Amino acid sequence: MSVLVVGTTALDSIKTPTKENPRLLGGSASHAAVAASFFSPVKLVGGVGEDFPKKYLALYHRHRIDLAGLQMLPGKTFHWSGEYEVNMNNRRTLATELGVIETFSPTLPKSYQSSPFVLLGNIAPALQHRVLDQMSRPRFVVADSMDLWLNIALPELLKLLKRVDGFVLNDSEAHQLTKEDNVFTALKKIHKLGPKYVIIKKGSHGSVLSGPKGFFICPAYPLHKVVDPTGAGDSFVGGLMGYLATARGAIDANLRRAMIYGSVTASFCCEGFGLTRTTQTRRSDIERRVKELEQLTKF
Amino acid sequence: MSVLVVGTTALDSIKTPTKENPRLLGGSASHAAVAASFFSPVKLVGGVGEDFPKKYLALYHRHRIDLAGLQMLPGKTFHWSGEYEVNMNNRRTLATELGVIETFSPTLPKSYQSSPFVLLGNIAPALQHRVLDQMSRPRFVVADSMDLWLNIALPELLKLLKRVDGFVLNDSEAHQLTKEDNVFTALKKIHKLGPKYVIIKKGSHGSVLSGPKGFFICPAYPLHKVVDPTGAGDSFVGGLMGYLATARGAIDANLRRAMIYGSVTASFCCEGFGLTRTTQTRRSDIERRVKELEQLTKF
Repeated sequence: MSVLVVGTTALDSIKTPTKENPRLLGGSASHAAVAASFFSPVKLVGGVGEDFPKKYLALYHRHRIDLAGLQMLPGKTFHWSGEYEVNMNNRRTLATELGVIETFSPTLPKSYQSSPFVLLGNIAPALQHRVLDQMSRPRFVVADSMDLWLNIALPELLKLLKRVDGFVLNDSEAHQLTKEDNVFTALKKIHKLGPKYVIIKKGSHGSVLSGPKGFFICPAYPLHKVVDPTGAGDSFVGGLMGYLATARGAIDANLRRAMIYGSVTASFCCEGFGLTRTTQTRRSDIERRVKELEQLTKF
Repeated sequence: MSVLVVGTTALDSIKTPTKENPRLLGGSASHAAVAASFFSPVKLVGGVGEDFPKKYLALYHRHRIDLAGLQMLPGKTFHWSGEYEVNMNNRRTLATELGVIETFSPTLPKSYQSSPFVLLGNIAPALQHRVLDQMSRPRFVVADSMDLWLNIALPELLKLLKRVDGFVLNDSEAHQLTKEDNVFTALKKIHKLGPKYVIIKKGSHGSVLSGPKGFFICPAYPLHKVVDPTGAGDSFVGGLMGYLATARGAIDANLRRAMIYGSVTASFCCEGFGLTRTTQTRRSDIERRVKELEQLTKF
């Protein structure tokens, strides 16, 4: 089955102490869509400007991503530039040029409206709502977000949480939303806001799922070197939704394994700037790391 | 088989925003010995002053801990007092009165010298060396330490690392020792200092083992509320060594499960001040949480 992915489609300029990487393909939708494409057909919803490089359209095509929902808009593509410190732990935004994303409003082609799996990637909650408004009874909807929307669009985000099956956020966002330091208490509080499934991401410490079957403690794949963590969270949820969309049986029975696939897909993302490593990854590479994670956690 | 445990035997006064807990039984040896006692016979090595409450001797006795190696010295028992902030994440030392620990020197009774399992709990590396000097070919030796010894006794600690099978430290100490942020790279570097097995503890994020069979990612038991994490690291390594000492077969084959038992024992420690919760724990409570952890990590 197919996954509809909405989010930002951006150009990222990522500086580190040793390297400059101008205008890489980035954005939550790009990372999530490529990650999901390893497992199932993907329908992309987004907006890019006239300056969007053709090579990135070709990249989407190589991943067999349906671009019927990708709008080409007059103006410039959303451009983010940031800088990492030596230890790669702290990221500083240098510039954000919204470009066409400022006026972008998702319009779903007819062929998208019955997608069974919907990933509302990180973008303004109002736009996530607009996508849902155009869908006819999707089977499973998961939303991602970021601290920015908790700060400036909390009412819309809270309304969204009542419309989704799953919500994914990182530990600092969970703290911001619930004022709870304890991850497990925070999970409990977030369920009360609506979602049946809540996943808290903890970067290199893995992630935790909370759902009707209780908790699942999901490990991160052990990386000896993180080159660029930009988009790792989007890759995680993209891989997760892509796997879920092809797995047979009940969501509940597949979600743990889907998180493992998400975790592994995100590990490849971290090993290169932007999508450079992810796009060189093969399904067999993913399967190998999933098997490794099985070994690494067995007792 | 029995475990010899050396470390501090202390009185801890622990303040939180809502409660004062004066003169609780504490110290690395107390926490580790009680934790190990759930699984195997324990031989304690330590020194206390004339003010050491009889009720704490009774507590050791209830856990069938051999006290032949516990010296009663003229003077006062080592006393630590500290304060936790509201979120229980930051601890501040209010006072440290060394008392008898300043002149304590471990002397092993004859009955201790052939203990097959030796836990060199957190105490000055010079004293850890002194214990090893008195042992006759132990089967498995693990050392714990703390940032203090990395700061003021690094040469002795580095010498110790060449004499032990396993070394346990937390992530910030691993960073301090190796200047590495990445846990897996740090593990590699610590092996080069001597130990065949290295375990890095990450608090509520679990722990990671590195050994000849590769890595093991060990989860922490999910706690909704941490009352007092003092001694959790000592409980972890105590439970680990206690379990190892009773498990049949090769160390390598038992170490992962031993970490799980250590992790669960530490979870009980965190649920009460000092040893108050741990001492109310039964072996069946531990087994229940081990089964739960199996469920929480299966995929």
